[in-house]
Amino acid sequence: MLDNDPAHAFMPYPPVSVPNAPSGPLAGLTFAAKDLFDVAGYPTSAGSPQILAMSGIKTGTAPTVQRLLDAGARFVGKTITDELAFSMSGKNAHFGTPVNGAAPDRIPGGSSCGSASAVSNNLCDFALGTDTGGSVRAPASHCGLFGLRPTHGGVSLEDCHDLAPSFDTCGYFARDGETFTQVGKVLLGADGNALPEKPRLLRASDAFALLDRPVRDSLAPAVRQIEAILGKADETDVATEGFTVLYWTMRYIQGREAWTVDGPMIERLKPPMGPGVADRFEFSRNVTDQQVMESQTIRSRFRERLAALLGNDGVLILPSMPDIAPLLTDSDEALNDYRNKALNLQCLSVLSGLPQVSIPLASREGAPLGLSLLGPAGSDLSLVHLAARIAQAPQRG
Amino acid sequence: MLDNDPAHAFMPYPPVSVPNAPSGPLAGLTFAAKDLFDVAGYPTSAGSPQILAMSGIKTGTAPTVQRLLDAGARFVGKTITDELAFSMSGKNAHFGTPVNGAAPDRIPGGSSCGSASAVSNNLCDFALGTDTGGSVRAPASHCGLFGLRPTHGGVSLEDCHDLAPSFDTCGYFARDGETFTQVGKVLLGADGNALPEKPRLLRASDAFALLDRPVRDSLAPAVRQIEAILGKADETDVATEGFTVLYWTMRYIQGREAWTVDGPMIERLKPPMGPGVADRFEFSRNVTDQQVMESQTIRSRFRERLAALLGNDGVLILPSMPDIAPLLTDSDEALNDYRNKALNLQCLSVLSGLPQVSIPLASREGAPLGLSLLGPAGSDLSLVHLAARIAQAPQRG
Repeated sequence: MLDNDPAHAFMPYPPVSVPNAPSGPLAGLTFAAKDLFDVAGYPTSAGSPQILAMSGIKTGTAPTVQRLLDAGARFVGKTITDELAFSMSGKNAHFGTPVNGAAPDRIPGGSSCGSASAVSNNLCDFALGTDTGGSVRAPASHCGLFGLRPTHGGVSLEDCHDLAPSFDTCGYFARDGETFTQVGKVLLGADGNALPEKPRLLRASDAFALLDRPVRDSLAPAVRQIEAILGKADETDVATEGFTVLYWTMRYIQGREAWTVDGPMIERLKPPMGPGVADRFEFSRNVTDQQVMESQTIRSRFRERLAALLGNDGVLILPSMPDIAPLLTDSDEALNDYRNKALNLQCLSVLSGLPQVSIPLASREGAPLGLSLLGPAGSDLSLVHLAARIAQAPQRG
Repeated sequence: MLDNDPAHAFMPYPPVSVPNAPSGPLAGLTFAAKDLFDVAGYPTSAGSPQILAMSGIKTGTAPTVQRLLDAGARFVGKTITDELAFSMSGKNAHFGTPVNGAAPDRIPGGSSCGSASAVSNNLCDFALGTDTGGSVRAPASHCGLFGLRPTHGGVSLEDCHDLAPSFDTCGYFARDGETFTQVGKVLLGADGNALPEKPRLLRASDAFALLDRPVRDSLAPAVRQIEAILGKADETDVATEGFTVLYWTMRYIQGREAWTVDGPMIERLKPPMGPGVADRFEFSRNVTDQQVMESQTIRSRFRERLAALLGNDGVLILPSMPDIAPLLTDSDEALNDYRNKALNLQCLSVLSGLPQVSIPLASREGAPLGLSLLGPAGSDLSLVHLAARIAQAPQRG
């Protein structure tokens, strides 16, 4: 596989046999895992040359990877991640930029870039990623894939390199609704809070208002496609604190946690880090206790309010990303601006811990654009089913 | 060691026990090896995240490393090298810049940067490097160390990542003449062509003429120090073809060989490479057969002429480097210009295959500056002895 890899999606590790069950619900499917997850026989880099050097060869396999192997899926490789998973571009300054299979002149999005690249280039059927601040939803939207960020804590991240543990989640990508559902059944198990056949539909008016007009227009048919199945959505504002407040709340907490995880290594080894990543860790180092405390208060209040808004039966429509993927040739500054804009959309599920599914329902200038559904805690598999159902429905003009 | 490493000289691999003989001529000495050499229990990166990823854990130890272990020296770690050893700055874009122990605000020089850093920061007694186009002599001069580039083929490079095999040599660094000699005896064995007690001294006038006046002035006392021991040097021009011709001869051959070694990996994985390194491989990819053929002819003629000039008893004084180490803050362009200037001096031993020792005899602006002796093939250990003898002699004003 590696000698004929058009996508540079995979880490170039020497291939090692990773046994899977001969039969099971995922038999016949191939999968890859973001190089944050330990797989016995392989190192784990977390996209960092230093972490790779310190890794050694792992002797254990992360339980979530093992779960897929036990279900019969065949492991084909570890995929490139953004450096320490702390970027949304999919450009790793050390390991390269995996190719966006749906728009090869555009960034794949990250940090689960290699996983989205592998699936979008047909190098495997599905792939594990992680989503801390958008790292599944961004590449899913950019590469035209189904992608789930599950309820926080819903899928095990044991033996997986942390970024910001109170935000980190284990998500996945698939090209089609059927595979997306098959994998979801194995990975997510039964919902603690299954959605009704026709959930109550809400539309995050203030989130859509963040988009440029042409992007909103591109998403409009997809919204109608959902309403055709679930009924007219109620308009609602979700960020009554304002998106700026939520954005900083997320960044302060993420920064503090990221520095707690990776700061000691960074202080000790002073690794040269890629554009943006170094700046973000510098920001993280300087987050104050006061900022963290205030952010925790805001987070709790927001969490309660969004949970109350959705209840047990509400599903919120929101844009997955501010736009189609930026071009590979865009400047680092432009990518950073795009990232900050994107974080406004990402922070709703991040701060609330609620599951969000990105569905490949739209496009613009020939590149894909996802639309998202955010549901109550424990409604993950329902959202996955719903995503598949919506994607199958005929598109309304 | 790693948790208290002021020099960032070492690769952050998990420490593995590497057994050495309990006694022997190097008992009590510690050493490090450039991360091009295989050491059982460790990966080998060659300064490249891709080579590191592909490496796996090596099961064998390079014979040259083993020779030192068998002589009782204790291995303390693998040192950072410039990316794929194809740089002279000592700045690795992925693994960082080891600290120059003699001039911490200046580059250590490369590509054996970590080895020179480790020795100059007293983290070990001596260290293995390699020298293809100056990679031992540059950091030796910059970090105030003794450094040997041996006769080509004189010290085994088995289980060592190649750069340009017909130029590659295995050299080493030490802080003092005694250790330099002790290690030389083990590493080099007896000379095939031992120098007389008072070799015939030559001074490469045209090489000194390449230097700026203040640098020449700084080296003058060191030249007199040598002449006080060996007698007045005869002035001679060594590059009758012109340094520019020799420079390109070296670059074309090195480029072709480097592309043969690393090109397939670069074509396949498209690794993001650091400043200068990417350009040099791009240059290497484009070297033509015609350029290589012409260069081989020039090289043969030069080789014969320099060998004839030295005979069995001649020793040539030449500057190790064009100047003290550039500042860490100097631009990539300035470093590249400095490198090209330095290659004019390096190419004499590179093209001829003759051994060269750099002796820490001078300084300028508080930073060290080496002076070199180049001898006949097989006179390596004599040069090492001579270097120690000269360094011990009282300095003449």
